[in-house]
Amino acid sequence: MVKISIIGYGNVAQHLIQAFQQNPEIQIQQIFVREPSKVIGFSEGIAYISDWSLVAPADIFLIAVSDDAIRTVSEQIPLKNQLIVHTSGSVSFEEMSKDNRRGVFYPLQTFTKGKQVDFREIPICIESEFSADLEIIKKLANTISEKIYIINSQQRKALHVAAVFVNNFVNHLYQIGNEICLENQVPFEILDALISETAAKVRTLTPNEAQTGPAKREDQQTIEAHLEFLKPDATKKSIYQLLTQSIQNNGKEL
Amino acid sequence: MVKISIIGYGNVAQHLIQAFQQNPEIQIQQIFVREPSKVIGFSEGIAYISDWSLVAPADIFLIAVSDDAIRTVSEQIPLKNQLIVHTSGSVSFEEMSKDNRRGVFYPLQTFTKGKQVDFREIPICIESEFSADLEIIKKLANTISEKIYIINSQQRKALHVAAVFVNNFVNHLYQIGNEICLENQVPFEILDALISETAAKVRTLTPNEAQTGPAKREDQQTIEAHLEFLKPDATKKSIYQLLTQSIQNNGKEL
Repeated sequence: MVKISIIGYGNVAQHLIQAFQQNPEIQIQQIFVREPSKVIGFSEGIAYISDWSLVAPADIFLIAVSDDAIRTVSEQIPLKNQLIVHTSGSVSFEEMSKDNRRGVFYPLQTFTKGKQVDFREIPICIESEFSADLEIIKKLANTISEKIYIINSQQRKALHVAAVFVNNFVNHLYQIGNEICLENQVPFEILDALISETAAKVRTLTPNEAQTGPAKREDQQTIEAHLEFLKPDATKKSIYQLLTQSIQNNGKEL
Repeated sequence: MVKISIIGYGNVAQHLIQAFQQNPEIQIQQIFVREPSKVIGFSEGIAYISDWSLVAPADIFLIAVSDDAIRTVSEQIPLKNQLIVHTSGSVSFEEMSKDNRRGVFYPLQTFTKGKQVDFREIPICIESEFSADLEIIKKLANTISEKIYIINSQQRKALHVAAVFVNNFVNHLYQIGNEICLENQVPFEILDALISETAAKVRTLTPNEAQTGPAKREDQQTIEAHLEFLKPDATKKSIYQLLTQSIQNNGKEL
């Protein structure tokens, strides 16, 4: 039985709480919520607190708050020599207070309020200040996921940047596709199968092998027709140009 | 029974041949292959030809060749008043020879050599010069797919541009993610679940609702750290900047 406490009640915190609650090996002892009015419903046996002085020792504390609040929150915990991990992709554990043993527990996924995810498939990237703590972080991660990666801070930073490209930026390209469809009275759902297959392809091929399209085959006639089509929207046109150039240079400097 | 002939033997042609062959309502009469040496194996009952004078009448001809060859190929067919459709997303049917009745049969998917696809899920966008021909094109499409859309040339052009964004450009962002991982000794597979979930999300949310990340939440500190990280690679940095700006302007002109 691992006794954990969770600091934070945002999107990531709530998904973690839900996942841990389904696991009999985990006991959630306390959940620190800054604004008690935000708690809707409660779970038997968990103490919800909003007063730092009430924080009690646990096997692991998970800080699941926004990146810029991690340092301050870590300094508020009125305990010493506890194992404290944060859940961020871009913050080094060294930014947390030195009063405690520090680590990282970064679930690499995009969490949407109200949309359940299957945690067993979600990679959890872990790291610890002291090697002796790695085992318990790993044990905790293994209770919800089958995919645990030991990743150092530099690698995690790289991973987070890569995640921005394959998630945030990809989603934005979906939005551009959606806008083009709306403007032309075409249902966006026509693109569903293409979007799924594009994502599925890179599980079996490298993205380089999977690349197709006018940029890749240097089909200048189609590229020019597309740029002409996008002319009224300078932003979309710039994005089209830059990504086309980048594909044609295949990763080499422009 | 619909009697069809296919002109072309590239990627799209071969996927179509495979799909039609599985359907007892379809009889593939002839396949026109420019270079006979490219044909590996053959199917009983289908005539492979490479001499235009041998082309025989059929219920529908499908021209599945590269965009810039469609016009020439359509002019080579030594018949009149046949129903001829091409499979391209970006070419108007009006580019084909007027000797025949023209139309479009555009399966909107990314086809990879050797990777089978489930055609029932693939949208087929159809169009015809004469309304009387639409029914037979629709009937043909329905033998392999459940998703048929009647789309005019302007809409198909828009759809093709949208497809470049959600497929070609998205795949290129996967490649950038892959390169960042490789450079930092992080396995790209860590991003698999994120890539799948990002694609799955836009089936239930609009891309605008699904948008997350430092650009969306105006987290300038993280954005600057990422730009610093990308500094050695001017192309990746430009793409990061442009897409971040575009997210922050949410589709408005930059």
